[in-house]
Amino acid sequence: MIKVGIAGARGYTGRELIRYLLRHPEVKITSLWAHEIKPQGEIFSDLCPEFKGLLDIKIRPFSPSEVKNLDVVFLALPHTVSMKFVPKIIEKVNLVIDLSGDYRLKSPNVYKKWYKVTHSDCKNLRTAVYGLPEINREKIRNARLIANPGCYPSGIILGLYPLVREKLIANVSIIVDSKSGVSGAGRKKDIALLFAEVNEDVRPYKINDHQHIPEILQVLGIKSQKKFSFIPQVVPLTRGIINMIYIFFPSRFSEDIFSIYKNCYKDEPLIRIYGKQEIPQLKNVLHTSFCDLGYFNWLNERTFLIISCVDNLGKGAAGQAVHNMNIALGLEETLGLL
Amino acid sequence: MIKVGIAGARGYTGRELIRYLLRHPEVKITSLWAHEIKPQGEIFSDLCPEFKGLLDIKIRPFSPSEVKNLDVVFLALPHTVSMKFVPKIIEKVNLVIDLSGDYRLKSPNVYKKWYKVTHSDCKNLRTAVYGLPEINREKIRNARLIANPGCYPSGIILGLYPLVREKLIANVSIIVDSKSGVSGAGRKKDIALLFAEVNEDVRPYKINDHQHIPEILQVLGIKSQKKFSFIPQVVPLTRGIINMIYIFFPSRFSEDIFSIYKNCYKDEPLIRIYGKQEIPQLKNVLHTSFCDLGYFNWLNERTFLIISCVDNLGKGAAGQAVHNMNIALGLEETLGLL
Amino acid sequence: MIKVGIAGARGYTGRELIRYLLRHPEVKITSLWAHEIKPQGEIFSDLCPEFKGLLDIKIRPFSPSEVKNLDVVFLALPHTVSMKFVPKIIEKVNLVIDLSGDYRLKSPNVYKKWYKVTHSDCKNLRTAVYGLPEINREKIRNARLIANPGCYPSGIILGLYPLVREKLIANVSIIVDSKSGVSGAGRKKDIALLFAEVNEDVRPYKINDHQHIPEILQVLGIKSQKKFSFIPQVVPLTRGIINMIYIFFPSRFSEDIFSIYKNCYKDEPLIRIYGKQEIPQLKNVLHTSFCDLGYFNWLNERTFLIISCVDNLGKGAAGQAVHNMNIALGLEETLGLL
Amino acid sequence: MIKVGIAGARGYTGRELIRYLLRHPEVKITSLWAHEIKPQGEIFSDLCPEFKGLLDIKIRPFSPSEVKNLDVVFLALPHTVSMKFVPKIIEKVNLVIDLSGDYRLKSPNVYKKWYKVTHSDCKNLRTAVYGLPEINREKIRNARLIANPGCYPSGIILGLYPLVREKLIANVSIIVDSKSGVSGAGRKKDIALLFAEVNEDVRPYKINDHQHIPEILQVLGIKSQKKFSFIPQVVPLTRGIINMIYIFFPSRFSEDIFSIYKNCYKDEPLIRIYGKQEIPQLKNVLHTSFCDLGYFNWLNERTFLIISCVDNLGKGAAGQAVHNMNIALGLEETLGLL
Repeated sequence: MIKVGIAGARGYTGRELIRYLLRHPEVKITSLWAHEIKPQGEIFSDLCPEFKGLLDIKIRPFSPSEVKNLDVVFLALPHTVSMKFVPKIIEKVNLVIDLSGDYRLKSPNVYKKWYKVTHSDCKNLRTAVYGLPEINREKIRNARLIANPGCYPSGIILGLYPLVREKLIANVSIIVDSKSGVSGAGRKKDIALLFAEVNEDVRPYKINDHQHIPEILQVLGIKSQKKFSFIPQVVPLTRGIINMIYIFFPSRFSEDIFSIYKNCYKDEPLIRIYGKQEIPQLKNVLHTSFCDLGYFNWLNERTFLIISCVDNLGKGAAGQAVHNMNIALGLEETLGLL
Repeated sequence: MIKVGIAGARGYTGRELIRYLLRHPEVKITSLWAHEIKPQGEIFSDLCPEFKGLLDIKIRPFSPSEVKNLDVVFLALPHTVSMKFVPKIIEKVNLVIDLSGDYRLKSPNVYKKWYKVTHSDCKNLRTAVYGLPEINREKIRNARLIANPGCYPSGIILGLYPLVREKLIANVSIIVDSKSGVSGAGRKKDIALLFAEVNEDVRPYKINDHQHIPEILQVLGIKSQKKFSFIPQVVPLTRGIINMIYIFFPSRFSEDIFSIYKNCYKDEPLIRIYGKQEIPQLKNVLHTSFCDLGYFNWLNERTFLIISCVDNLGKGAAGQAVHNMNIALGLEETLGLL
Repeated sequence: MIKVGIAGARGYTGRELIRYLLRHPEVKITSLWAHEIKPQGEIFSDLCPEFKGLLDIKIRPFSPSEVKNLDVVFLALPHTVSMKFVPKIIEKVNLVIDLSGDYRLKSPNVYKKWYKVTHSDCKNLRTAVYGLPEINREKIRNARLIANPGCYPSGIILGLYPLVREKLIANVSIIVDSKSGVSGAGRKKDIALLFAEVNEDVRPYKINDHQHIPEILQVLGIKSQKKFSFIPQVVPLTRGIINMIYIFFPSRFSEDIFSIYKNCYKDEPLIRIYGKQEIPQLKNVLHTSFCDLGYFNWLNERTFLIISCVDNLGKGAAGQAVHNMNIALGLEETLGLL
Repeated sequence: MIKVGIAGARGYTGRELIRYLLRHPEVKITSLWAHEIKPQGEIFSDLCPEFKGLLDIKIRPFSPSEVKNLDVVFLALPHTVSMKFVPKIIEKVNLVIDLSGDYRLKSPNVYKKWYKVTHSDCKNLRTAVYGLPEINREKIRNARLIANPGCYPSGIILGLYPLVREKLIANVSIIVDSKSGVSGAGRKKDIALLFAEVNEDVRPYKINDHQHIPEILQVLGIKSQKKFSFIPQVVPLTRGIINMIYIFFPSRFSEDIFSIYKNCYKDEPLIRIYGKQEIPQLKNVLHTSFCDLGYFNWLNERTFLIISCVDNLGKGAAGQAVHNMNIALGLEETLGLL
């Protein structure tokens, strides 16, 4: 059995990860950590009673010395916290999968610009592999440190990648209008995340100013932020992201975009392409690790629309982390995921 | 006192209308009608107990012979039903305000194309006034039959009208990404409107195929549907619509769009212009008759974003109907609305 | 015009109070205060844009020296904060209405037991009037300091008071199973109030341990807590409380409880008694100041059920505060409320 | 592999059943049926796209002649529909599990009283086994026709059964205050189930008049309905039921009820007993087949409170059906369930 430890086990991502791993036939969760835990540790299922009878082991405060006798460590920690721990644990285990934003941006300058702090672990940043299997599968196989993609980038990159591969987005501009459930913001004390604030509202925020933008640009090879506009919105959902991806081409063309997508993802186990007349809706991906892609229609003479949906906790975080682990360890890719 | 009757009083729009009119100092609601009511009538507040103590009069089945001794009749009926009644009641009262789609489209052919039935009252269709006060105030003053705008069109037209007035949208293409609460679809037996369907979902529907499209084009004077793309989405809200209006200009220009809007609407009591750095959010207009407009920023070298919000039952239906009545009857415009 | 100031204007109760007062024909809101406001003040409608165009005055940090030229001050502050300010402002205005729990419990010992702090203003505590108009109307008329009832107590006391008046609850035991929206807990940074926690959950809490219990016992004259069990539950609603009041009599009796209630409240403008076959539902009172009472049936040979509903922000807080103000100042009671 | 067919596959229960069975290592779903399907059948995942890539077989209109080459048939049909089909298919398969109410009540008279129709299959009614494993495990092992319990009864019976077994409820009266998500009512065209009706409401209904009452009384051996009061309420949730079970004993006694429950269920894999200081909350059982039981406290000298939670689609329907199948076929009990 693969022995696994999870830091940040009480957060929304941490708990979703546990849910996936409990169903994984090759994994045994042996360590859980979080902050604000009593020094001697506490029974995890006392704190998170949904796991009563399923995972009654102790959860303990995280420190690098806690990492021992483990094969894989998942870090479901807030941004800027992960990079403090990675250098201290990476030599102790076979694989570290970091679910924060700390190891996704290749340039420390870009990181500093968007996350407002100086990166403190440039060495590991250099070798970290961006864990989007559909694009980076081969690198993931040999990875020691995987930067698990952000929730918005997962659905958006997958919605654009086939066009990139076909070199069709050289002269386009892109607008992504995204609606997200609130768990993507994490389990933190923030007035804006209160039920009475989020309920009965739709709230656009950080328009063209969201820290996931440079991640998307980097992976897709888009040089100028002017070509990519991002309009994220919080909707009254616990989970899920739906992206309306509007692509403005210089002019309409005859290549069959639908077939390009069908072909690009034909062997991908976690991507589902909808029929051309079908409109994806968010709920089909909730509690799954699928990315659903659909619509694929010209809206007018220049504009093409693709809709992508992911569960921000599934394909957008925990499910993708398990997918990455499976690939890195040479397991069947979808173990624990379907 | 102005004596008012309401047909369709049990629907979501009908009840919101009653809520507004109960607060209106010059109005007395004397007649209520609906379908599926016992022939002898029933006490309205027994059927809709939110009105206990506020409106305990009888509600009766609607028929043209019911209309007597009234100044104003509001028809909060489904599309295709209104046009059966209007010709039979219009001579009996001073003012009919129809909240359905039946009298909004000037062309019977266009009506037939989008509503799938032949218009049966072309005579009154010709004289009906489109009741968007910010555009049609003078015509509303003398109207006998007012076609109250649709919920989507209210917010979208107001979000684009100042540019039309300045002749700035001649060569643009427009994409409107709208999220709507579910009450806009009415109180009808439809699986797609069930709680267990709408909750925890975002559902795009009728992309570029929604019956509100020709209404928007007609009012804005846009000749070709190719210039206007409409992507409506149901979000888990009872009420409210937020429109992200993306406008693609041939190129960026220096006119101050923000000032154009400020100026265009400077005397409008029910339009609120946000600061340039402010992002409107939906909840600010819920339970009001305001249309909030904001953001007003270039996203890139060609694309401008305006965000508009309305309550589909307020500015998008009942509140606007009261506004129209106030204007048509020469009352203070915002009576009962603030 | 009555000049009014509101402390805690950004909270859920404060904002609901403003909504009511803006519709009140005799009131002018001239001062707003809150914590975490810049020293020089800020435009209220910049912070709470739902009030754009409706209340664009400044909000300032609260201090006693701020209170001048005012007739009425409402304190929509957290518990334990109000009692610091009341002694410093009470001589400066005609009327203080405190919406916290600080002046509701007559015994400082009981206060300390349930609120975990020593009461610091016993002098004013002694003269404060408990502002439940249906019970205390005469005292409210002459009050200088009104302790506005808690949200749970409002609905529960009104659901039991007629039996108390008829001396019918001497030997009963009572169980109240209450479901509340989350705004009752205030606008504060608390993990338990996050959308992702409250959504898709029902969460019982503080069973027989809620600070509203002594308030209910005091007003109803119940000496022993053993006779009253309280099981509050958070449901995924922004607002509203529904109380299932189960009363266990020594044995069934023939008095007509329904008529007792009808009679007791027959002149009350904000209480609505449902028919005996009618089951109240929560949404009928939302956004109103009504308390709805209904069902009134023996469940078995000993147990009687009464259902009461209030909007925790309406009859349970802001609406009731306005009602109290109207009474204390000799205005028509329902001004601004219907 | 066990070959399984499901009738009513498009309903909420049917789809949850499919979700469970897709994870079951010994099962292969080979037939799906529903009403309103084209005669030639349709691709199931076109109708229910959440199953794209997971179950792309055809769904066909249900008729008895459809049942062939199957080991197990699940009937997730509305009440009164199941009993038409069972006699026609029961000889064709090893096991029929009916999730409707048709085979739960042993007395055809009681059935007629509560379901308003005459039972048409008394023969199979006699032999049907009530499928609550914690009570009926041995009978389930040999069953050919299993009546899967109702959603409310599952949680309520399990919350009372240990007291029954200890003969402690002879002279008690019981009140159950239940809050349920809306999927329990099924996927049907009903105004009361619309999002705009259920959202922002708590709606008590069918007080002491719900068709699940006789099922509870029968299983617990309670002879008189007067001893059992049931107050169901719809809350704005898609799924889940929380029951507050108030038990009125003649007087308080010293037996340790908590230990009685601990002991009674100590070997049950799908029942979780909470600590005495712990309050269960609904969300811990969502998307699981657990029944959580907790609180176990005297509220006063006579009244004891037990809280039980189930997912109405899990332990209250589909999960329990799979549990029953596992037992009946001699498989490991929790296969596919954890």
